[in-house]
Amino acid sequence: MLANLLQKTQLDTLGKGLGRVTPGSTFAGCGSLGWSILNEDVSLPVAVLRQSRIEHNLVWMKQFIERYGVELAPHGKTTMSPELFQMQLAHGAWGITLATASQVQAAAAHGVPRIIMANQLVGKGNMAIIARLQQADPSFYFCCIVDSAANADALGRYFSEHQQKLKILLEYGAQGGRTGIRNLSQEQAVLDAIARWPQTLSLVGVELYEGVLSEEHAIRDLLQHVLARTQALALQNQFKESHVILSGAGSAWFDVVAEEFGNKSLSTNQTLQVILRPGCYLTHDVGVYLNAEKRIQASNPVARDMGRSLLPALQLWAYVQAVPESNRAIIALGKRDAAFDAGLPITSLHFRPGAQQRPQEAPSDWQITAMMDQHAFMSIPESADIEVGDMLAFDISHPCLTFDKWRQVLLVDEQYQITGAVQTLF
Amino acid sequence: MLANLLQKTQLDTLGKGLGRVTPGSTFAGCGSLGWSILNEDVSLPVAVLRQSRIEHNLVWMKQFIERYGVELAPHGKTTMSPELFQMQLAHGAWGITLATASQVQAAAAHGVPRIIMANQLVGKGNMAIIARLQQADPSFYFCCIVDSAANADALGRYFSEHQQKLKILLEYGAQGGRTGIRNLSQEQAVLDAIARWPQTLSLVGVELYEGVLSEEHAIRDLLQHVLARTQALALQNQFKESHVILSGAGSAWFDVVAEEFGNKSLSTNQTLQVILRPGCYLTHDVGVYLNAEKRIQASNPVARDMGRSLLPALQLWAYVQAVPESNRAIIALGKRDAAFDAGLPITSLHFRPGAQQRPQEAPSDWQITAMMDQHAFMSIPESADIEVGDMLAFDISHPCLTFDKWRQVLLVDEQYQITGAVQTLF
Repeated sequence: MLANLLQKTQLDTLGKGLGRVTPGSTFAGCGSLGWSILNEDVSLPVAVLRQSRIEHNLVWMKQFIERYGVELAPHGKTTMSPELFQMQLAHGAWGITLATASQVQAAAAHGVPRIIMANQLVGKGNMAIIARLQQADPSFYFCCIVDSAANADALGRYFSEHQQKLKILLEYGAQGGRTGIRNLSQEQAVLDAIARWPQTLSLVGVELYEGVLSEEHAIRDLLQHVLARTQALALQNQFKESHVILSGAGSAWFDVVAEEFGNKSLSTNQTLQVILRPGCYLTHDVGVYLNAEKRIQASNPVARDMGRSLLPALQLWAYVQAVPESNRAIIALGKRDAAFDAGLPITSLHFRPGAQQRPQEAPSDWQITAMMDQHAFMSIPESADIEVGDMLAFDISHPCLTFDKWRQVLLVDEQYQITGAVQTLF
Repeated sequence: MLANLLQKTQLDTLGKGLGRVTPGSTFAGCGSLGWSILNEDVSLPVAVLRQSRIEHNLVWMKQFIERYGVELAPHGKTTMSPELFQMQLAHGAWGITLATASQVQAAAAHGVPRIIMANQLVGKGNMAIIARLQQADPSFYFCCIVDSAANADALGRYFSEHQQKLKILLEYGAQGGRTGIRNLSQEQAVLDAIARWPQTLSLVGVELYEGVLSEEHAIRDLLQHVLARTQALALQNQFKESHVILSGAGSAWFDVVAEEFGNKSLSTNQTLQVILRPGCYLTHDVGVYLNAEKRIQASNPVARDMGRSLLPALQLWAYVQAVPESNRAIIALGKRDAAFDAGLPITSLHFRPGAQQRPQEAPSDWQITAMMDQHAFMSIPESADIEVGDMLAFDISHPCLTFDKWRQVLLVDEQYQITGAVQTLF
């Protein structure tokens, strides 16, 4: 199905980050256009994915979850790219996690067969989207999170009126954290509400997001608490299916969740199905997730045993726009192009078109110090060999808020030849 | 031309911020679907433009520039919406300003007849876009900025090879600022480079961006310096056309630029054509530009004389997603939906679907304190009457970085009925 869609999906020829394309060109045809970043066939700034690194990361995570005997529903909000979702599914992902009803709609339309919406489904306009998807394809697997009795009742009312069932996960949260029930009285209130809609709501498991905590011991405490509650709820016969989902893990602590949840079981005759939800492993970065990776490599035995770690795969290329002062360059790359909330882009490569064969590693003292909407300020030493028109590659921190700046992202090989393109659906 | 395009431009039915649309629906048809925000016909979160306020702001700016006898080329990077560009052109804008070649391409494809690119045109891939546009439509007016001899030579070479002319503006900048020449030796080097391409490069004026400075006296000094240089360059016969463009003004200091540049002239027989470039006046905000507006109302006699000031027109609606603790609500609105770099969204209205007829002003102590990709944390008093499923409207600070989170933005009347939709082309 996806291959068919891709054949037909037209490039946004008015969008940024492409070369010269004829209107009507498709994403599928992008790899055969002969474009090269270094040959300036493309309008900069541009976002590229290094294909071999994406493949490396896909294989890495597949091996990791296999070693722990857990499943993977990567958070798709990171990329919102149906082509990347398909790569993740082809590398062993059980399904895709998403954050909103409209994200679910976009993924389902591109053939994602199983979706966890890691949020409550709130509001008539959003419930209508899910009801329509379930109606259109009875084999489509969807579940969402519940942490409030009011929401459970609202869902029960809406989906019973629409004569549909809805699978839900009970969400646990940490005091001072984000969503999720905090205590046993909230838990009981939600379970009571769910019980009011026995023909409609089906509790299929438990969910948490540990990423709002920053201390490992607090995370392990929460995970152990949630595992214990899952086992207790199973004994109470709260779960209605033979597999009980237990899902956790953002992109920073998935190893700890695997350690705590892997190889655990229920004392009922139900199977515990552990599903991890990291999203950023696919592209990784050189900022927040590099730091997380260092901790994982230092402390997780499976990751250490696997040797090579995740590789940063998402890069931005931009021109030197001006060198108005001897210690300052202005780069044609801004908040419109890159995340800036978890560290500014890091200068990685320097290339002078027409004068060099291949990019050189950029000096480490070429540092972006601030960004505006369409510009970055770079401090450079007085002696820097840098000119207007030079090309720079930047690695990034926080892939999620970089992806949503681009409607299409180019795939490149190690020589920066374009091998394809993926769309995003934000 | 635009009306035709709008008739045909299809809604991104998989995108966020819409109601239930049939595939193939167009932007032009959005206003007749009978959607209402308050009736939950739309999937939240959603971005809306209050139509009457947009119209108010359009008229306000038209009157302002007429009073000063200057022209307007609003910075289109703010909204990147061809429908909003068309409204600005219909309200007296001479043209549209843009930041990048791909933005120029998108605007030109939607019928914008005159474009200032307020940046150097750097790189073969970007020059190719402009050359193609000039080739396709000889009546298309385009000019861009030059502040480096290297860039002037690169442009001269590229456009002479393509047997085209290119209009350019000389950019002046401030020491410690962004782009633009800093001193007379840089000025001379650029003028010398321009003179090397007499058949190709046509210097049509001067440009500056004062918004990198924060002190009014420094801004006035820069403006007076640039005016003096423009007059001097005119005497040197550097400008080739009968109208000499003198362009400045972002969204914060356009009044000061109008005061300094309005009613000035050249001592040659050329006409000085002053063009202001504010972009954010169209939607205004309740943050950085509200603060700018307060200064303008306090100090600019024309703005004061005009009475009412600009009105915030861009709003975001989102659901209360969870109320997990008595002093904390989680809102289904994140960095994916709103600017967060110049102040967080401000809670404006509270509405409980099914229980209220119209939204109420939100208590001022319902304050967003932090945002994640898809969630906001809101502090509330213990007694707050707030429930999962309640709808909240938020005003924003920094429209530019809010617009680029949305591919379609709904137009609403004062009752939050949907009257139309506009697309964005980021």
